[in-house]
Order: sequence, then C-alpha cells, then structure tokens
Amino acid sequence: MEQDIEKRALTAKKEVNFSEWYTQVIINSEFVDYTAVSGCIVFRPISYFVWDAIRKAVSERFIKAGISDAYFPMLIPQRLLEKEKEHVVGFSPEVAWVTQTGDSQLSEKLAIRPTSETIMYDSFARWIRSWRDLPLRLNQWNTVIRWEFKHPTPLLRSREFMWNEGHTVFATQGEAEAERDVILGIYNDVLKNYLALPGILGKKTDNEKFAGALASYSIEHMVPDGHAIQGPDFHNDGQNFAKAFEISFINKNNEIEFPFQNTFAISTRELGVIVMVHSDDKGLVIPPKLSKIQVVIIPIYKEQNKSRILEYSNKIMSELEKDFRVYIDNREDYSVGWKFNEWELKGVPLRLEIGQKELDSKKVVAVPRHTLKKQQIGSDNILKQVSAILEDMHREMYEKAEKFMKDHIKRVESYEELKKAIESGNFAQAKWCGSLECELKIKEETGAKATNMPFDAQKDVSGQCVYCGKPALHVVNFAKSY
Amino acid sequence: MEQDIEKRALTAKKEVNFSEWYTQVIINSEFVDYTAVSGCIVFRPISYFVWDAIRKAVSERFIKAGISDAYFPMLIPQRLLEKEKEHVVGFSPEVAWVTQTGDSQLSEKLAIRPTSETIMYDSFARWIRSWRDLPLRLNQWNTVIRWEFKHPTPLLRSREFMWNEGHTVFATQGEAEAERDVILGIYNDVLKNYLALPGILGKKTDNEKFAGALASYSIEHMVPDGHAIQGPDFHNDGQNFAKAFEISFINKNNEIEFPFQNTFAISTRELGVIVMVHSDDKGLVIPPKLSKIQVVIIPIYKEQNKSRILEYSNKIMSELEKDFRVYIDNREDYSVGWKFNEWELKGVPLRLEIGQKELDSKKVVAVPRHTLKKQQIGSDNILKQVSAILEDMHREMYEKAEKFMKDHIKRVESYEELKKAIESGNFAQAKWCGSLECELKIKEETGAKATNMPFDAQKDVSGQCVYCGKPALHVVNFAKSY
Repeated sequence: MEQDIEKRALTAKKEVNFSEWYTQVIINSEFVDYTAVSGCIVFRPISYFVWDAIRKAVSERFIKAGISDAYFPMLIPQRLLEKEKEHVVGFSPEVAWVTQTGDSQLSEKLAIRPTSETIMYDSFARWIRSWRDLPLRLNQWNTVIRWEFKHPTPLLRSREFMWNEGHTVFATQGEAEAERDVILGIYNDVLKNYLALPGILGKKTDNEKFAGALASYSIEHMVPDGHAIQGPDFHNDGQNFAKAFEISFINKNNEIEFPFQNTFAISTRELGVIVMVHSDDKGLVIPPKLSKIQVVIIPIYKEQNKSRILEYSNKIMSELEKDFRVYIDNREDYSVGWKFNEWELKGVPLRLEIGQKELDSKKVVAVPRHTLKKQQIGSDNILKQVSAILEDMHREMYEKAEKFMKDHIKRVESYEELKKAIESGNFAQAKWCGSLECELKIKEETGAKATNMPFDAQKDVSGQCVYCGKPALHVVNFAKSY
Repeated sequence: MEQDIEKRALTAKKEVNFSEWYTQVIINSEFVDYTAVSGCIVFRPISYFVWDAIRKAVSERFIKAGISDAYFPMLIPQRLLEKEKEHVVGFSPEVAWVTQTGDSQLSEKLAIRPTSETIMYDSFARWIRSWRDLPLRLNQWNTVIRWEFKHPTPLLRSREFMWNEGHTVFATQGEAEAERDVILGIYNDVLKNYLALPGILGKKTDNEKFAGALASYSIEHMVPDGHAIQGPDFHNDGQNFAKAFEISFINKNNEIEFPFQNTFAISTRELGVIVMVHSDDKGLVIPPKLSKIQVVIIPIYKEQNKSRILEYSNKIMSELEKDFRVYIDNREDYSVGWKFNEWELKGVPLRLEIGQKELDSKKVVAVPRHTLKKQQIGSDNILKQVSAILEDMHREMYEKAEKFMKDHIKRVESYEELKKAIESGNFAQAKWCGSLECELKIKEETGAKATNMPFDAQKDVSGQCVYCGKPALHVVNFAKSY
C-alpha cells in the first residue's frame, strides 16, 4: 500500500519481456524488495509466508521420516572449510569472510557458511563412535551466503538465501542409497501439492554434481521462457567427507569403518519458480495453500446499504475463517476498483465480491485469481464451495504447468534438432555418450547445459550420442538455465 | 547415545557446584554441544525442539495480534550501522565484520547483524510514505552475532544466538505505547504456559536500557543461585531511529511527521533458564509441551513373555500417539536400568514402565520426571490420564519455581539489609532515588545490578533511597546477574 496502485501496475508483459516482467511482479506486488546490500533481498510478508508454509510442509515430512532438526553455527573456521579438497575448490571463491570483530583482527578467518558440511561433520566426528550411534539424520533450516559475482536475480540468484540442509550418516552404503527416493519423494510431494509445480527427477552429470559428492540428483523445473531452474537436490557423498573429517565407527564385529553420507536441500529459489510459472500480467498468482491471505472479501456498498452489506460480509467471513485465512477489505479510503487491482497484483487466490444483488439473493460473487472468471455461489455451505474452488484452482495451476512442461520437452535424434529445440525455447532430450567433452561442446555451442538425466527416460538408451555419434549411455535434458 | 551412559552421568550437584552442574547437564544430556568456534554452540535436536516450540507459540500469538513475519539480510553495510549514534556505540565493539569475499577485499565492510534496526529501517524509510502505510508491524526469526569478550556461558552468553526481533512503527505515540502490554503479555503467557517459568515484569533503569531506546521493559527471571537472567524485552524507541533513518509520513492533514517505533525480542537464552530452574542432579527436566519426546515407554520382558509385553506396549503407544509425541524404547542392546538413566538424563517428562505385572493387571507404571514417583495407572482411558499427569507436572514445575522466586525477593529498607539479601542469594527489592550514581555505587559495592523496576511494586514509593537517603522515586530489584 506504500505507493499508489497505478504506479505499481505492471507495464511489462510476460510474453514480451519476461525478465522485466519478472522484476516488476516481484517488486511491485511487495513480494520482495532490494536492499542496501547488493544481491541481498528482503522477504516481505507475502513471500516469507510462502517460504514458511513450504518449510512446515517439508519439515513435518522429514520428522515422520525420522530426521531431526538441529542448528549449527553460521561461522566456520578456515581450516575446517578446507578439509575436503573438492568442496573447498567449489565454494571458496564465493565465501564471505569475517576477519575482524569489534576493532580486533581474528587470528583465523571465519567463513559465513556457504553450506554446513564442514562445521557439522567436525561435530559428527566427535558424536559417532559405534554402530549404535547410526544412522544419524539431522536437518537444519537456515540461510547461507554465496557471494556470486554473476548478475544477481532476486530469489533465483541471491547472495543470501534460505534453505534446508539435510545431513545424514549411515553404517552401510545400501541404507544411504535407499534414502534418495524417500527424500526426493518428499520434495516432489511438496512441490506438487503445495507449490503446484511439476518437476523432472533425475541424476546430474558428473560435471554438474555438488562439490564433494559422488553423485547428485535433482528435481528440475521449466519456466515459461524455456529455461531450466534447478529445484531441490540430493547428494550421495559416499565416504568422501567421512574420510576427510575422520568420521568413523566401530561396527558389530568390532572393526573400524567409515560411514556413508547424504545431503539434500530445497531453497527459496522455489519462490522465483512459483512466480515465473504461475503469475501473469496482472501480478502474482500464489498457490492457495501458500498464500498469507487465501480469501479477500470486498463489500460493495453505498451509505444507505452499508450496514446491511457489512453485516452480511462479516457473517460470510466468520464462517470462512473456520478453515481459511481471510481478509475483509472494508477500508473507506480506497475505491472498489483500486482494491480489485491491489489484490490481483498481490496474488490472493480468491476474491469474493458482495454487493446489494448478492445480499438480496444470499449469494456472493467468487473470482479465482488464476482465471479471473466471475461465478455466483450460494452463501449456504460456503466453506465447502470455497474449498472446492481452491482445490480446483490448485489442480488447474498444476495441470497447466505440467502441460507446458511436457509440450516443451523435445526428444531430439540429431544435433541439428537439438539446436533447433533449444533455440525455440525447449528442453532438448538427447542421447549422450557420457563424455565431458561432448557435454561442454554442446554448452559452448548452444548455451544449453545438461540439466539432469531423467530417471524415467533412461529405459531406452540404445543409439548414438547426439554430439559425437559414439554409443549412448544416458538420456539427458539439455536446456538453457538460470 | 554416543557415549556410555555411565560416563555421561552427572557428578556435580546442583546445590553444591551450580555452574559445573549446569555445564554437565547441558553437555552430557546432548542438549547442546561446543563447536570449533569459541562461544558458538550446536543446538542438538532436544534443545532445537524446545526453541522451535517456543517460536511456534510466540509466532501464532504475534500473527493474531496483527504482526507479520518477514526476513531481512544478515549483512549490514557499515554506513547504515553507524546512522544512530547511541546504537552504534552500544553494538560496534561486538560486531563481526565481513571484509573479504572470495579473494577480494570489500570496498565497504559489512557487519553480521547484532540486531536488525539499521538494515530494516533503511527499507522502512522507503516503504512508509503516508498515514495509510501505518502501522507497519514486522517480526523476524533469525540468529544474531555479538562477539562478546566476556567468558561465554552456553545459551546464556553465546556469540551466536537465536531470537525473534519485532519492529513496529506507529503514527502516534499513544498507539506505540499501547503495544507494550500486548507484547509483554504474549511473552509472559508463553513463559508461563510453555516454559513453566515465572517472571518479573518491569521497566529497566536508564543505565540498563537498550542502545538507542527511550525506555526499555523486561521480564526478569530468577535462577536457583539467586542470580537474575533477563528474559524477553520490549523497547520504546520513540522517534530516535525514525529521525536517524529519515522515516517520515504524511499525516491526514497533509503534514510530514516522524512515526514512533518499538522493538521486542525473546531469545534462546530462555533455554538456559529452563535448564537452570527445572533440571536436577539426574539431568534435564523439560516442560511437557516443549519436549521432543513427551512419553517414553519402556517394556520390561524376558524371552518367554516378550511378544505379549511388546504387543501390549505397542497398543498403549498407538493410543498415546493420538495426542502425544511417544517413543518406545525396545532396543535390546541396552538394559532397563540404562534406559531409565538415559531418559532421565535427557529430561523426557513421562516414563511408562510395562512388565508382566502391568500386563496381567492391564495397568502401566507411570513415572513423571520431576518427582520420579512411581504410580500405577489403568490402561483404560490412558490418554486422559497421561494428559492429567503432564498438566499436573507443568503446574507443579511452575508453582515450585514461582514459590522459590517469591521466597527469594527480599524487601529491604536499609543498605545493610540490601547487602545481606544479595549475599544470601536473593533479589533485594529497594527504594531508589533514580540517580545513576547510587545505582552504580550499589553495583560496585555489592555486585548487584538493577534488574528492573517491577510494575507491581511501584504503588508505594514513598520513603528514602536505600543508598543516599534522598526521596525515593522508584522501587528496584537489585540482583547479581548472568
């Protein structure tokens, strides 16, 4: 409400200038804002609520799966950060270093965590002694700093972002590997049922895996400009960190062994994907379960029918508040048109309009945000009706995104087809020999990187690498990416 | 479980060596742990759960009161931190400075927030334009760094701690001041009904107020060694920050005005208070609503009755899981005695023992952690019975702490009485003239500082200052403090 709604109306069109549209949507709707620190943003109440709802949904599933929340320090001594070789190479260029406290220089620099393996595993090494101490499955919700020098894009590439980081330790490789499908299943469930986002589950190529992991897995998103955005990921670290941090245990036969570790994460980058996939030229469209306000009621009255309309509106509100987060906008300093624009810009899933006609007929006008189509619903049984409208909305948002994604994954048999598919804003699904050289050449020549190797596309890998013609080992989705 | 329970049993006694006992309780019970970063601790699952439960309880009350959650960057440019004079003097000696990212020196140092006024109000100044934008009431849950050089005590004085920071802005002084009782009321409600902790509500002296505030208010705790620990606080900042950060608004008469601001917080220091007040020589005693495991079931069997006892125990568990967080400890590698010790050390509120006798009589033995008194309860209606036991436990824990506190607040009429009260481990409630000189002299000579001026002790301030004999203006609780 800080600026006039007319100044905040979007001028850029999603179809015409996607990137300018994205910036206008997230800033003008008061979803996030820039700050005095370049590359760091404010999560304003609307976006923070979305993240908090995602956090709750993931968290309750982790707890059921036997993973406990904990919290480790944000600062990591330099010597710990440097213990695992590939890990430090991957992260040290982006680390923010604390070198001074008050007026004193520190004798050893402290990194603000870019991720917490190194500080956590220093504790794990002290805690794990025997097979009885395993599995150890911890998770933390925090923020990390990665001081990237590429152009920052709010939410997608921010220097500070929020995420979960799961860190688990198992006695056997089999147990560690079995966790992968549980965790990816949890993330995918939340993506589908809360964010209304489809995703592509698969394995990352070696070139794209996490610094320090044996194998990485991801859920990849597609946004309307045909670019890929990596969603939640899961890393199988094998015994790499265990060896570097001397995490060992005595097994049942009284022998010393190194355990097997996994890590996994979902981040506030998802909020950028939600905006890109679902929102439109009028502003945000927030999936119903993630919206701070789910239903906004707008009473429309003149002086003579004001009290009756407000009374009827308040009755509707009381009923809806049993199951939903409801706001009644009866502010007198704003016109009805202003209110419509405002709540459309802010992405509230359902608007209910209540005027004299609705009062007379004991109905309300319901306008779901994703279609903006008006429909009359009766005031009897309104809880059930609103619930059905919001469920339909969620399903329709998901189905629309899924259809778009499926329509834009092009199976290609030749390099020419691959280039054409990428140029026209698609994912190109291609056979690949597995060599780093082909992967890098494709990236260099088309701008498309290997997003992941979808699990469900690996059944048939007979044939030739799309680049070099040698026998194919994998099917890869190539795409331009954020 | 990482070390053998015998090695983790407490050797220090609470009554004899309070400070050594405190360290043993929090470390040996796996509540928290030290880390490679001096002064920073790990919140292990038991303590993190306690904090998370406090967070949820406070958060839902804030939301009902109209306060929204948001998230601002953890890094603050030096020039912002230095905008409010008293504030920077208060915090800069303890600030952790980021001076370098990757291999590059930053052109301007960035502070890790010791508190977020300065980064938030920079945004507030852009967001607030008109009276329509007020009130603005935001809160965030985060961690802050204060690099204190005093000896750190885990939870009570940690260099990184978790808290909420509420930051609100109002058009009028009256509205701003009216918020105080709402917020202190919320904190006090959660302290009483979740932490089972009594507290003393009052105003801080000018000498003890927050750097940058006009007036500070606190809820003070008393711990068993007679020391005070400051709990949640609330600061009335007046227009100080508004002026420093140029936060202004156009009022209804089209005039430019500065708004009035408040801030308030509750922190993980409360976890230290919970341990100190409630726990005993056998380990932690966690208030029932805050415990990750609320009920632990210990089946006691031999080979011949194992299956029947486990079946009966599992039935009890299924029933209890409807309302409680339950763990059945049927591990065969540990003895029953080991399990008793383990869960007593970890502070699980209720232990249920189930053996042959219980199976035969369709009963269970219930042992609440705070008394360790065994009682038999029938298995019919067990949900109600366990609920009643845990409610009694909570009430008894609160009442015991409240009685101790009341017994140890000594009203003193002379300086001799004050000194005696402090020496014998009490709070000394004394009349005071309001001068900084008397306050500092008392601190210097007795080691006791002015904790706060309890609201409910201000009715009768006639009489003389306990130190200088001049007319008294306030009644103050003096105490040694952490």
